[in-house]
Amino acid sequence: MSGFDLFVEIQKRNAAYAAAINSGDLAAWVEMFTDDALYLAQPRENADRGLPLATIRCEGKGMLRDRVLAIQKTMVFTPRYTRHIISAPNVSYARIESEMVNTAPQVLSSSSNFVVFQTLHMQPTQILATGEYRDVWQRNGDGLLLKERRAVFDTELVPNSLIYPL
Amino acid sequence: MSGFDLFVEIQKRNAAYAAAINSGDLAAWVEMFTDDALYLAQPRENADRGLPLATIRCEGKGMLRDRVLAIQKTMVFTPRYTRHIISAPNVSYARIESEMVNTAPQVLSSSSNFVVFQTLHMQPTQILATGEYRDVWQRNGDGLLLKERRAVFDTELVPNSLIYPL
Amino acid sequence: MSGFDLFVEIQKRNAAYAAAINSGDLAAWVEMFTDDALYLAQPRENADRGLPLATIRCEGKGMLRDRVLAIQKTMVFTPRYTRHIISAPNVSYARIESEMVNTAPQVLSSSSNFVVFQTLHMQPTQILATGEYRDVWQRNGDGLLLKERRAVFDTELVPNSLIYPL
Repeated sequence: MSGFDLFVEIQKRNAAYAAAINSGDLAAWVEMFTDDALYLAQPRENADRGLPLATIRCEGKGMLRDRVLAIQKTMVFTPRYTRHIISAPNVSYARIESEMVNTAPQVLSSSSNFVVFQTLHMQPTQILATGEYRDVWQRNGDGLLLKERRAVFDTELVPNSLIYPL
Repeated sequence: MSGFDLFVEIQKRNAAYAAAINSGDLAAWVEMFTDDALYLAQPRENADRGLPLATIRCEGKGMLRDRVLAIQKTMVFTPRYTRHIISAPNVSYARIESEMVNTAPQVLSSSSNFVVFQTLHMQPTQILATGEYRDVWQRNGDGLLLKERRAVFDTELVPNSLIYPL
Repeated sequence: MSGFDLFVEIQKRNAAYAAAINSGDLAAWVEMFTDDALYLAQPRENADRGLPLATIRCEGKGMLRDRVLAIQKTMVFTPRYTRHIISAPNVSYARIESEMVNTAPQVLSSSSNFVVFQTLHMQPTQILATGEYRDVWQRNGDGLLLKERRAVFDTELVPNSLIYPL
């Protein structure tokens, strides 16, 4: 894929990512990650200082599935709709590794801004969180999988109400 | 058009759609639809249950024009600015019908997330609604027209202040 | 570049623009403009009436650098995070000048919707402003520079808290 194709492909993946969470199809959300993926939801203050503390941390697909199971089976929370708007990715600093090594997987970095809105029953829609996805994508045949997604959010006040992944 | 071209073409159409409404050029908004188009603005709760009740329902271009006329001539409301942000489309489940039949029009489905902000005179900007466009596009020469747009919004509390189309 | 390429290129430039401001790399922000660029942040009411009054006005790269210096050295304000979401551009009315004249620079117009969120320490994220970028881009080798960006915002109530450029 060329640079333009990759840019568009990341947009498509992010649209599918948003649709999976917003429609409640969390199994599809899990399938967007590599087996060894890292998913974090972390306040920006921690991320920028290099502190490890995160509101959600999943290492590997097993932990992603556990999170989904918890949301669907064990967590108690008020029903809500979420709505993601994800910007076009910033790939101007994308590094494409292993370009010379045909046998190695190709990996690239990008970042995108997001806003997630939340709507509770008979309530007005509110901002749940804004922030930045800091991503590492891995080629998988013709597509891309998330090897790493750090959902770095701007406010420290979100965690209590964080049920679904950002 | 290839898959990539269609993805970009839908983004362009959505940008033009937003610009038509936000600039007040509602005649241009009407021209984005097919003659037999369906336009709905509907709360998600109704849409997901298959209930027909919608806040705005226009069947065919005539009813779209009537709606525009009502906004411009007969409805009484506080002046306001609207501002749409529309995400990249989710076309991963796009079905392209009639691919084998050269004479038939080509139709495809997509969905996009939206947020519409509203600003009244000397008021801070507020969220009017978030939601999802559930669309059916029809090829029209080199371009695309909306055969169906269901603007499914997340909160039940929006209708009273819904003047312009979402 | 073809029409599709330009559309994607503008999206990329806007993603880089947002990243520069949101990450605090204001030097990179300045480098997105031509030497003689005009940057305005202006309420929509003024813009639509053709009134010149603007909340921020920078004519030329020197004034952009002065603004950055003011933010970094002399302005006193509460620390805050900003977060831009910029829509796909509306280039349906793009005019490409001087197509016949190989020696002249190529210039094109577009507009994009934006929302800028703001987060103060231990505060919930809020809408700072929504609005429209009215842009003139200039070709620069393989890339695009901003010859003019009018950040036209919808509410009159934003100016007091406008520190970073929209």
